[in-house]
Amino acid sequence: MRALSLRGPSLDDLAEVELPDPPRPGHGQILVRMRAASLNFIDLAVATGQYPGVTYPLVPVADGAGEVVEIGEGESVSGLKIGDRVALHPKALWIAGRGTAENGAAMRGLSLPGSLREIATADAASVVKIADHLSWEAAATLPIAATTAWNALAAADAGPGATVVLLGTGGVSIFGLQLAKARGARVIITSSSDSKLERARSLGADETINYGTSPDWDAEVKRLTAGRGADLILETVGSDTFARSVAAVRQGGVIFTIGFITGTTLELDLMPVIVKAVRVQGNNTGSVQDFSQAMQAIDAARIEPVVDRIFGIDEVGEAYRLLSRGGFFGKIAIRLDW
Amino acid sequence: MRALSLRGPSLDDLAEVELPDPPRPGHGQILVRMRAASLNFIDLAVATGQYPGVTYPLVPVADGAGEVVEIGEGESVSGLKIGDRVALHPKALWIAGRGTAENGAAMRGLSLPGSLREIATADAASVVKIADHLSWEAAATLPIAATTAWNALAAADAGPGATVVLLGTGGVSIFGLQLAKARGARVIITSSSDSKLERARSLGADETINYGTSPDWDAEVKRLTAGRGADLILETVGSDTFARSVAAVRQGGVIFTIGFITGTTLELDLMPVIVKAVRVQGNNTGSVQDFSQAMQAIDAARIEPVVDRIFGIDEVGEAYRLLSRGGFFGKIAIRLDW
Amino acid sequence: MRALSLRGPSLDDLAEVELPDPPRPGHGQILVRMRAASLNFIDLAVATGQYPGVTYPLVPVADGAGEVVEIGEGESVSGLKIGDRVALHPKALWIAGRGTAENGAAMRGLSLPGSLREIATADAASVVKIADHLSWEAAATLPIAATTAWNALAAADAGPGATVVLLGTGGVSIFGLQLAKARGARVIITSSSDSKLERARSLGADETINYGTSPDWDAEVKRLTAGRGADLILETVGSDTFARSVAAVRQGGVIFTIGFITGTTLELDLMPVIVKAVRVQGNNTGSVQDFSQAMQAIDAARIEPVVDRIFGIDEVGEAYRLLSRGGFFGKIAIRLDW
Amino acid sequence: MRALSLRGPSLDDLAEVELPDPPRPGHGQILVRMRAASLNFIDLAVATGQYPGVTYPLVPVADGAGEVVEIGEGESVSGLKIGDRVALHPKALWIAGRGTAENGAAMRGLSLPGSLREIATADAASVVKIADHLSWEAAATLPIAATTAWNALAAADAGPGATVVLLGTGGVSIFGLQLAKARGARVIITSSSDSKLERARSLGADETINYGTSPDWDAEVKRLTAGRGADLILETVGSDTFARSVAAVRQGGVIFTIGFITGTTLELDLMPVIVKAVRVQGNNTGSVQDFSQAMQAIDAARIEPVVDRIFGIDEVGEAYRLLSRGGFFGKIAIRLDW
Repeated sequence: MRALSLRGPSLDDLAEVELPDPPRPGHGQILVRMRAASLNFIDLAVATGQYPGVTYPLVPVADGAGEVVEIGEGESVSGLKIGDRVALHPKALWIAGRGTAENGAAMRGLSLPGSLREIATADAASVVKIADHLSWEAAATLPIAATTAWNALAAADAGPGATVVLLGTGGVSIFGLQLAKARGARVIITSSSDSKLERARSLGADETINYGTSPDWDAEVKRLTAGRGADLILETVGSDTFARSVAAVRQGGVIFTIGFITGTTLELDLMPVIVKAVRVQGNNTGSVQDFSQAMQAIDAARIEPVVDRIFGIDEVGEAYRLLSRGGFFGKIAIRLDW
Repeated sequence: MRALSLRGPSLDDLAEVELPDPPRPGHGQILVRMRAASLNFIDLAVATGQYPGVTYPLVPVADGAGEVVEIGEGESVSGLKIGDRVALHPKALWIAGRGTAENGAAMRGLSLPGSLREIATADAASVVKIADHLSWEAAATLPIAATTAWNALAAADAGPGATVVLLGTGGVSIFGLQLAKARGARVIITSSSDSKLERARSLGADETINYGTSPDWDAEVKRLTAGRGADLILETVGSDTFARSVAAVRQGGVIFTIGFITGTTLELDLMPVIVKAVRVQGNNTGSVQDFSQAMQAIDAARIEPVVDRIFGIDEVGEAYRLLSRGGFFGKIAIRLDW
Repeated sequence: MRALSLRGPSLDDLAEVELPDPPRPGHGQILVRMRAASLNFIDLAVATGQYPGVTYPLVPVADGAGEVVEIGEGESVSGLKIGDRVALHPKALWIAGRGTAENGAAMRGLSLPGSLREIATADAASVVKIADHLSWEAAATLPIAATTAWNALAAADAGPGATVVLLGTGGVSIFGLQLAKARGARVIITSSSDSKLERARSLGADETINYGTSPDWDAEVKRLTAGRGADLILETVGSDTFARSVAAVRQGGVIFTIGFITGTTLELDLMPVIVKAVRVQGNNTGSVQDFSQAMQAIDAARIEPVVDRIFGIDEVGEAYRLLSRGGFFGKIAIRLDW
Repeated sequence: MRALSLRGPSLDDLAEVELPDPPRPGHGQILVRMRAASLNFIDLAVATGQYPGVTYPLVPVADGAGEVVEIGEGESVSGLKIGDRVALHPKALWIAGRGTAENGAAMRGLSLPGSLREIATADAASVVKIADHLSWEAAATLPIAATTAWNALAAADAGPGATVVLLGTGGVSIFGLQLAKARGARVIITSSSDSKLERARSLGADETINYGTSPDWDAEVKRLTAGRGADLILETVGSDTFARSVAAVRQGGVIFTIGFITGTTLELDLMPVIVKAVRVQGNNTGSVQDFSQAMQAIDAARIEPVVDRIFGIDEVGEAYRLLSRGGFFGKIAIRLDW
C-alpha cells in the first residue's frame, strides 16, 4: 500500500513510499481505509525533530478518519461492521479513565504508525464512530483538538453562567468556542486579527479582544466579567500569555494548559496562584471515552468543524508549512485520495 | 406590619393578621420588603397538616423575593445595599457545601416565618441578587424549583449529548426544561395533555410523550435514545412513575428523586438498579450557593420563568387550591401588593 | 485441556470435560495457566438457572488467577512477561472509566468462558498483576468482591471521620471491613453470630451488632453515631434490610446497593430518601482500573483476604453448596491443581 | 479587655493594649474567651509589613481557640452552649463550598481582629467544636494548617496505594504526615536534618530524604515509587523546590501549592506539566466545613498535633522570631493566660 513516510526529522524527509499491505486484523483489531487526516502541533514537532525520542522512518500524523474494511475476531469488535465510518484516537491504549504512563505511551504518528497511509490497523476499542453530518475531513480534525477542548470545558464544568477565555483561533480554540457555546457558556476570544475576531463572532463568540491593539487582554477580561475574572482559560499559547492568564482567571478558576507555541519556559509568580486558589491543569489529549463524549456533543449540537484548508496528498508539505507559519483559522486537513 | 398567617393546619385557617414591625436588623441581617412569593408542594403540605411537626400559627410560604430596605452590621452584608432586589433562599442556614441535619433544619415557611408578610428579616448570607431581566414574581418562583432543577442537571453533568427526561409540566420540570436546553442537553418531556406538550415544545423540548395515550413512556424513552436510555430522569412524581423511571434510565444514569405527589411508598425492583448501576439521588432543595449558580445560569441564558398565574394577596387560598388541583403549567406566583 | 463445564442450569450438570487447547494468543492477548478461582453469588445464579440469558455449556466462575505462560503481539502486552502472576477481571472489556452497556456486556463465566479451566485466553488489558504477598487463592478472591468494596468506599469518600456499615460477613463485607480500616474509616458490622462478630472485631471492626438479638440494628447505628447516621451502608443483602439501611444512613449519605440475597423486590418509602438526600448507588463490579486501584490498596496495606475454605477441583460442587447454604466468613476459593 | 496589638508593620510595633470590652453578641454571634493561638506564615507577613493592604493597628494572629462565654440569638447558634470549646476559623465568611472573592475577603488577624485578645466575637457559623482529646494549644494549631493539609489530601484522593511527598517539617507538612497516615497513604518526607527525619519517622513517615545530602530528592522520590512518581506533592516551600516537585509527581498527579517561603517567582517549564497532565492546585486555606471535616478526622484518628513550643503572652515576639528563623518542627503555639 501507499503511504507517506518521514525518513528523518525534517519536512524534506517526507516522501511517498510503498509499504507492505497490512496483515489480516488480529484479535480485537480492524482495518481502516484512511480517508482524511488533520495536523496538530505535535505532528510539526515530530516532522521537524523537535519532539524527543522519535524513531524514523515513521508514517506521520496522529489524527485520521476512514472506513472500516475488515474486522478481526473478539468481543471488542462487536459494535463495528464493514463500512462504518470511524475516527482513530491517537492514544491507542488510553481507553478510558485516568491517564497513566502505560496507557499514554502508544501514540499514532509518534510511537505507532500515523494516518498518512492507505490502510491502517487499529484496535476496535480505539476508534469512535463518526457523526453522520461530518465529512471525512471534518471528522479527521476531531481526535486531538475536539477531545482536548471538551476536556477543558469539562474540567471547569463550563455551562450557562460561566465565562471561557480562548487564546487565538487555532483548532483547539475554535472547538473550544463551538463546544462552549453548545454547553451554554459565554466565550471571550482573543486574536490579533479583527477579521478573525469577526469570524469568531459569527461562530458565536460573545466578546472579542484584539490583543494587538489591547495587549492588556487580561484587564479586558476582568472588565468584561465585572472584575470577577474568567472561569476557564484555555491556555493554548504558552510562555507569552501565561502570566496574563493567571491574572485573568477568577478565584478558584481553571487554567487548562496545553500550549507551548511561544516557548515552554516562563517566569511564574506563585502568589496569585495561591491567593486565588487557581487550578493549573496540564493536559495531553484524553481517552477514547473522552473523545467519544466530544463526538456525541458534536453530533447533538450539529457542530461543523472549521477547516481552514484541505490539502491533497501531494500537498502535505505545504500543509505542515501552513501550520508552522500560522495565520490559519481552525484546523488544517488532508484528504487521503490515493 | 401586615402578614398572612396559618393559625392551624388547614387552608381555612389562613388569615390576614397584623404583626409587630420587625426590629432593626441584627448583625449580618437585612430587612426585605417582600414583593412576591411562589408556591411549592411543601407549602401545600404545611397548609393542610400533611407535614409533620409544624407549629402554628405560622407565616407560610417558603419562596419569596423583595427589596432590601435596611441593612445591619457585619462583614456578610458588605455585598448588599439599600434597594437591591433579592430572592430569599428557604434553607436559611445552608450556605454552601454539603447538606447536614444542622444546616437543613431552618426553613422559611416551616420552622421560620415565610414570605407572606410585608417585611422579612433575613441573613444577608441567605439571599441571592435577582437577575435584571426578572420581575418580582418571576424571581419569587426560583429558590426551590430552579435550584432543584439545576442540582439535578449538575448531578448528571447534563450537557450536549445527554438526554434528560422530565415528568409532567410543573415548576421543577419546566425549569428543568429551560435549564437543560441552556446547558445544551436534549429534553424529553411527558404530560397527559397535548396542549401542554405543545407548549413545552415551544419552550425548547426536543421530544414529547403523552403518557395518557402512550402509558409505556419508558419504552418510548428507550426508543428515542436508540435503546440506550436517558442520562437523567427528574423524578418529580413518585410511586406511580418510579418503576418506569428505572426502566427508562441508561446504564450508569441518574434518577433525581424529589417527587411524592402520587404517594411515597412504592414497590422497587432492585435488580435493574444494580445491573444498570443506577444512581437514585434523593434531593431536598440545595444551598444558597447552588441557588446562586442557578440564578447566574438563568441570567446568562436570559431564561424567563414560566408563571402559570399570578394571584393577589386576597387570592392566596385560591393559589393553594390551584396547586392542589393540578392542571397548571410551570409556577404559581403571589403578588405581595399590600 | 481439562476444564469444568456446566452443561445446563444445574449444579448436577457440572462435569469435568476435555476441551481443545487454546490457540496461540492473538493480538493483545495472553494465555494464563489458571491456579485458583473464587465464587461469587453471580456464579451460583448462573449454575442454578437463576441468571437470565445464559447459554450452556459454559465453563463457569467469573473470578480467577494464574500465571502468564504465553504472550501475543501488540502494544497492550508490553507490561507483561512470561511468569507474571495475574488476576483476571471478569468484565473483560470494561477497561476504565464509566460503565456502558457495551463495555459491560462481556463477562467471564457468563458470556465468556470462566476460570475453571487449565489455560485461559485473556486480553492483556483485562488482567491485573497480583501483589507479592498474596497466594493464588487469595488473589483469586479479589476481582469482584474487592473491586466492589473499594468502589463503595470510594463513592462515599470514606476515610477518617466517616462511619461505614457492613451487613453480614460475606466476601464483599469483609473486604469492605479491611479496606475501610486501611482508609481510616470507622466500621460497624452486623451478623447474627457472635463468633463471627468476634472474628470481625479481630480484623479491625470498631463496633458490632448482632441483628439476631438486636433486630433494630438501624437504631443501634444511629446510637453509635450520636444520632447522625452512617456515611455509607454497603447494602449486600437486599429486600430484608433496605428499609433499615435508609433509616441508618446519614443526611447526604450513600447506600451502595449490590445485594439481592433475600430477594430483589422491596417496599421503599421515598420520603426519607428525599428528605435526607440519600444517594442509592446501584453497582455491578467495576472496571479493570478500579480493580487495579483496589489491588494497589491491598498491596500497600498488606491486606490478607479472608478465605473461609479452599476447595479442590473435585470439590467444586461442594463449594457452590457452601455458598448457597451460607454460614461462611469471607470468601470461598477453589484451587485449580490439575 | 486586654489584647496584643500591632500598631504598625513591624514586630517592634507589637504591644499589649487595653481595648473596650466587646458588646453583647449580635444575631448569630458568640463571645469566646480566647485560650490559645498559633502562628502561621501569613501572621509573620502581616507583622513584618510583607502582606499588602493591611490596616494597622490590628489585633494579630489568624488561628485561635477558646471557650464560649456568651451566645446571641438566631438559628445558627443552636448547636452551641456556654462552655463549649471551639476553634475559630480564620476565613469567617467562607462557610462551605467553593471559595469566592466575597467569602474569602474577611480573615481574622488580617481584615478582622485576630486571636490575641481576651474575648473574641465570632459568628457561630465560623467556629468548630474541638475534639475532646485536644488541649487548648493543640486545638489552636488546627484551623489553617490542618485544614490545608486535609484539603491537599482530599484533592489528590490520597489513601492506601497513594504516595504523598511532604517538603520539610513545618506545621502543614506534619499535619499532612499525620492525616496521610490516618488515610492509609504512604508518606515520603524531606528535611535537611536527620534528627527531624528521625522524628518524622516516629510519627509514621514511611520514607525520609535528607535534601542536604540528597539534593536530587525528586530522583529519590522516583526511585522510591518504582519510577512512577508521587501522587501528591504538598508544595509548602515555593521557588526553590517547584521544579523538582514537577519532576517528582506522577502522570496525572497533584502539586498542591501553598508555599512561598523561598520566594514566589520561579522559572517553570510547562512541558512536563503538559506531558504528564499535572494538576497544580493553588490553595488558600479552606472553608469552615473543610475545617470541620479535618477536625472529625483528627478526632477519629486521635491525632495529637505536634507543637514545637508553647509561648506565653509576654513571649509572643519570640514566637514570631522562631517562625521567622525556622528550625522548628510542627506548630508554634501561644498560651493566652491573661
